Amino acid sequence: MPDDYPASLSDSAIREPAYCDNMLDRAALRRDDEAWLAGQKRRADAGYVLIAGDRPVVAVGGDRLTIRHPRALAESLGIAAGEIALLGVEESPSGERPVFCARVNAAAEEIESDIEAASASSLKLIDMRSLALQGALPLGDLGLLAQARSLAHWHATHGFCSRCGHETRMAQAGYRRDCPSCSAVHFPRTDPVVIMMITDGDKALMGRPHRLAEGVYTTLAGFMEPGETIDQAVRREVMEEAGVRVGAVTFARSQPWPFPASLMLGCFGQAESREIRLGDDELEDCRWFSREEVAAMLAGRHPQGLHVPPPISIAHWLIRTWVESLSEKTR
Amino acid sequence: MPDDYPASLSDSAIREPAYCDNMLDRAALRRDDEAWLAGQKRRADAGYVLIAGDRPVVAVGGDRLTIRHPRALAESLGIAAGEIALLGVEESPSGERPVFCARVNAAAEEIESDIEAASASSLKLIDMRSLALQGALPLGDLGLLAQARSLAHWHATHGFCSRCGHETRMAQAGYRRDCPSCSAVHFPRTDPVVIMMITDGDKALMGRPHRLAEGVYTTLAGFMEPGETIDQAVRREVMEEAGVRVGAVTFARSQPWPFPASLMLGCFGQAESREIRLGDDELEDCRWFSREEVAAMLAGRHPQGLHVPPPISIAHWLIRTWVESLSEKTR
Repeated sequence: MPDDYPASLSDSAIREPAYCDNMLDRAALRRDDEAWLAGQKRRADAGYVLIAGDRPVVAVGGDRLTIRHPRALAESLGIAAGEIALLGVEESPSGERPVFCARVNAAAEEIESDIEAASASSLKLIDMRSLALQGALPLGDLGLLAQARSLAHWHATHGFCSRCGHETRMAQAGYRRDCPSCSAVHFPRTDPVVIMMITDGDKALMGRPHRLAEGVYTTLAGFMEPGETIDQAVRREVMEEAGVRVGAVTFARSQPWPFPASLMLGCFGQAESREIRLGDDELEDCRWFSREEVAAMLAGRHPQGLHVPPPISIAHWLIRTWVESLSEKTR
Repeated sequence: MPDDYPASLSDSAIREPAYCDNMLDRAALRRDDEAWLAGQKRRADAGYVLIAGDRPVVAVGGDRLTIRHPRALAESLGIAAGEIALLGVEESPSGERPVFCARVNAAAEEIESDIEAASASSLKLIDMRSLALQGALPLGDLGLLAQARSLAHWHATHGFCSRCGHETRMAQAGYRRDCPSCSAVHFPRTDPVVIMMITDGDKALMGRPHRLAEGVYTTLAGFMEPGETIDQAVRREVMEEAGVRVGAVTFARSQPWPFPASLMLGCFGQAESREIRLGDDELEDCRWFSREEVAAMLAGRHPQGLHVPPPISIAHWLIRTWVESLSEKTR
């Protein structure tokens, strides 16, 4: 580990990125117990997390948001009985209670009007980023939503067998899809992504992907490919996007990123060259920033109004961790 | 990081697991340049890595094994022109030369007889584990084979669109499959797997999965699920398989594991309970081993003939790294 990196990355003073907490017991060992599952589905206190497209159904009545709904709402929205997945079980005042997840198969506008018709309380479809940014849900509920959203997206896009083209059906409480024609079994997909703060002493390399809001610079990132180590993927992505050579790579932390089903692998990397050459079409711009400039971006007082992504992202955590570790050293 | 873990995990004295070296430039930025690709395919020095089922075609004539074959062999084995993927480019005496990968679509016996008919040299299908264990290929070629094998397996199992069931076709030099019916684009799949040496002072937790050879004990491991961090996956898997509670988790290194397309995420984990309760059907047995016992297993001198997996695996690396770090401390 290069000695300008933080010695301890589990410093509790550093705020956590979103989606990293999930209090559910996934109860994986009970997923193929059909009788137990049927009993859980009949429980009056079972919670149903409902995903419509890429947004969860949220109850906004009362003093806080709720993402667990009664079975009656799921039924009124026409959830297919064979397409309900078990997220897990959790402690409740009435004992251990199950939390399920299901997709609502209709256009968002239809769902919004169905929702109004189905319930007196105020239900809304709210996108996952807004829910994380607002901080109006308990942290554990964001992790639970990440699990639900990634799983729901996988089911939505895997109704057919990739081996033979036949329709598939849900198995193992939602953690498998089986093909009745060729007998292939398919498992949920999680896509590893490297995301890296590339530094050279007190300078850091950050770029501006086209999709970002104006003035935002962030760490480079990219999907891992077959047959790669994390270190190789970091070096390849930085070379492709910025033309910069990377030496030592240090893994720092991971984050589930449910857009739709990524596993972010956060790293620090030591630059071995300085000249930037924009390669693929990912980045609109890429620059070296001084520690002072990055600190100003974090604090929202950069003279040109540049800033970094919000604290819900692992990018923010990597950027802040680097700035704070350098500050510690010069204190 | 618990203080009985090694301070530096990049100690060069520790031998590397297999498949972690790959000297190819993947040339990702040129994958959609059709004219360039066509030119590369026509080059006389282009190498073709050929995968039949799950085994590569290997030329065993001469003083070393060869996995790059001339285009003529690929053609004689009936490779479809639209199903050739670019692994990358590499330096050669004649300049930068491309390496392609293709699947042979026939039963192994047929291929073996076709191979004999097609070539005077001695060609064989050799499984990937044997190739790694024998050490008869340059290290970089094992990484290249891992890339080829994972990619070939993905193509072999994704000929149909998982969204609509229509046939798909290869795009982007093999790094995408497109559906001409619903316009979905599909990317190669890489499955993250946590693999962890769980310890409590000078004791380590290892298990015996049913599939392993007699007498072998190894680190616990399991596929990550949607919406998990690495730490959560480590804790869930150890609880499911052994009923042991895990606290602090430290990521150590990654390894591509092409059986068929895993990314091994090697970790150390601190046990917070000792009682073992076998949970799922993964393990036939699971025990706590002392450092002395594990050292004896590594050295092949355990009194009951127990041993650990071979050095090609990240399990071996985790086990040896732990034993050596404890030895250092008591020296």
